[in-house]
Amino acid sequence: MSKFWSKRTHELDPYTPGEQPQDQQYIKLNTNENPYPPSPKAIKAMQAAANDNMRLYPDPHSSSLKQAIANYYSLDTDQVFVGNSSDEVLAHTFVALLKHEKPLLYPDISYSFYPAYCSLFGIHAKQIPLNDDFTIIAEDYHQPNGGIIFPNPNAPSGIALGLDDIEKIVKANPESVIVVDEAYVDFGADTAVPLIADFPNLLITQTFSKSRSLAGLRVGFAMGQAELIDGLERVKNSFNSYPLDRAAIAGATASIKDKEHFDKTRQAIITTREKTSDALTRMGFEVLPSRANFVFAKPPNKHDAEQLYLQLKEQGVLVRYFKAPRIAGFLRITIGTDEEMDVFIEKLSLLLSSE
Amino acid sequence: MSKFWSKRTHELDPYTPGEQPQDQQYIKLNTNENPYPPSPKAIKAMQAAANDNMRLYPDPHSSSLKQAIANYYSLDTDQVFVGNSSDEVLAHTFVALLKHEKPLLYPDISYSFYPAYCSLFGIHAKQIPLNDDFTIIAEDYHQPNGGIIFPNPNAPSGIALGLDDIEKIVKANPESVIVVDEAYVDFGADTAVPLIADFPNLLITQTFSKSRSLAGLRVGFAMGQAELIDGLERVKNSFNSYPLDRAAIAGATASIKDKEHFDKTRQAIITTREKTSDALTRMGFEVLPSRANFVFAKPPNKHDAEQLYLQLKEQGVLVRYFKAPRIAGFLRITIGTDEEMDVFIEKLSLLLSSE
Repeated sequence: MSKFWSKRTHELDPYTPGEQPQDQQYIKLNTNENPYPPSPKAIKAMQAAANDNMRLYPDPHSSSLKQAIANYYSLDTDQVFVGNSSDEVLAHTFVALLKHEKPLLYPDISYSFYPAYCSLFGIHAKQIPLNDDFTIIAEDYHQPNGGIIFPNPNAPSGIALGLDDIEKIVKANPESVIVVDEAYVDFGADTAVPLIADFPNLLITQTFSKSRSLAGLRVGFAMGQAELIDGLERVKNSFNSYPLDRAAIAGATASIKDKEHFDKTRQAIITTREKTSDALTRMGFEVLPSRANFVFAKPPNKHDAEQLYLQLKEQGVLVRYFKAPRIAGFLRITIGTDEEMDVFIEKLSLLLSSE
Repeated sequence: MSKFWSKRTHELDPYTPGEQPQDQQYIKLNTNENPYPPSPKAIKAMQAAANDNMRLYPDPHSSSLKQAIANYYSLDTDQVFVGNSSDEVLAHTFVALLKHEKPLLYPDISYSFYPAYCSLFGIHAKQIPLNDDFTIIAEDYHQPNGGIIFPNPNAPSGIALGLDDIEKIVKANPESVIVVDEAYVDFGADTAVPLIADFPNLLITQTFSKSRSLAGLRVGFAMGQAELIDGLERVKNSFNSYPLDRAAIAGATASIKDKEHFDKTRQAIITTREKTSDALTRMGFEVLPSRANFVFAKPPNKHDAEQLYLQLKEQGVLVRYFKAPRIAGFLRITIGTDEEMDVFIEKLSLLLSSE
């Protein structure tokens, strides 16, 4: 605490990202990184962009990237917004579209950055409890609000909401912006992009960090009708004119054009996820039905999730544990390669049987 | 305008960056880019960072970069903050340290992003007129305030304030944070870094975009006592945990370690600036004494600055023109290579003599 800090800064409750140990080699199943490398074309594009032209500012509009995303999703370029990670895109979204007099609604269990944005931007929020089975009940979002946001699939549950339910929520709230945070959508859920044409109040955010194996490049984007994108651009241009560097624009553009690599790697992760879920179930875990690149699983009764997290860490396997209401009994396990998951399952079996 | 935008978003007056034409080849003297390439070591480091590890998040603390900056300036790493361009660093600074009940003070002529931040973050500001010769008068900042910010050298004037005057301002305002925005300091002004040890209320921001030829990489930083840096980290961690990508961390770290390249290129620009200033003066321009990588110059009486800007643009030379009170008679001309400045001076001579 300091007399020099603003009042808001004193009140902040910053987000805590998963551990990123810089020293030791872990099997890292804690931050939902992709176990497969990015598209080789993306790597080549980044290397090529690292040239003498780095002395020049990048395109402030990241036009080539917006165009590539628009092509991929059959949108117009003015329906696409890009930023320095989907976290930055979400931050601008909270300021531009979700800060109103009525409360912002989001599930009580969802991305833990949402409350951090609310505290940074002074947004009043109301958390809507998930059902007992950790699903979102669309009807719960039919109540006065200044905006709605939820991840789909949800995090850390991994459970997906169907397009019919999303449409119900969007239709029931024509005066509010509904943000669907699709960070994990490419691992088996349905994107809501086809609804954009019909609903001026729908914004979808995505990231290159998960399904495109580019967490190290920091690129995210949003899609919606031009009116919503315009609002985001106004905030962005009051914050940082050039959020994406030359390597990021080049790498992300090449990545989204390489559909073959994308489909191959995400399919591999889906296959490994199903195998991992089966193995955990056989070991007595309660595994929520995941459409993401992680599973959320509760150890058999006599085992404590936090203890298991610590024991796995000692054994060189990092998973994520959230000491939070309703989910403190669970572990979130990122899907790695088959080999990594075999080691994980083996170490886990030994830990369970040794107790 | 849209019913979906927040009230703040409607009121914004976003910053307008200098033109970044993506189509035509110009002699680009309009956005203060460095005409020399970045350190070859920085380019190699960026290329090396563009590898399969891009699938992993970067170090959220950018520790290697903070360490390199701390080493360069003989500071501790907890006295250094880094961000996605000095614009992002400034944005976080406005939120964390400059938003108080009393007004923020800055010169009436300075970086035109400051008012955009104030409007985005709801900060009440009071502009302090520069003296008639465009210098900052330290005593003008001895009045009630919730913070003070000014560029040194100032932009777009290029005029530097001495360390004695900076110390006067910092000493006179022990309850406020004084931010010295040193984007252009490496071209001949004195950095205020040596004052950090004595003054807990001094924050200095710098960028890799100008003197280090890395505008395309988007890296900026701030330096001050740990208490101020802590406040910035709190805001950063409520906004985006990983603002710097792997290429940016690697490139900037290598760049600040290459003192030889840095000194050679900045000295070349200083030499060319003096030659350019002399040539403009001989042509009848009023040239303000610049310590930056640009000059701010007023054409001889019968010539209109905006007209000249447009005519130069037609001739393939981009300079920057600000249609703003007190400075509408001036052109801001970035210092390019000797060859570029020769072409510029030649085209300018022809334009002046043809009228």
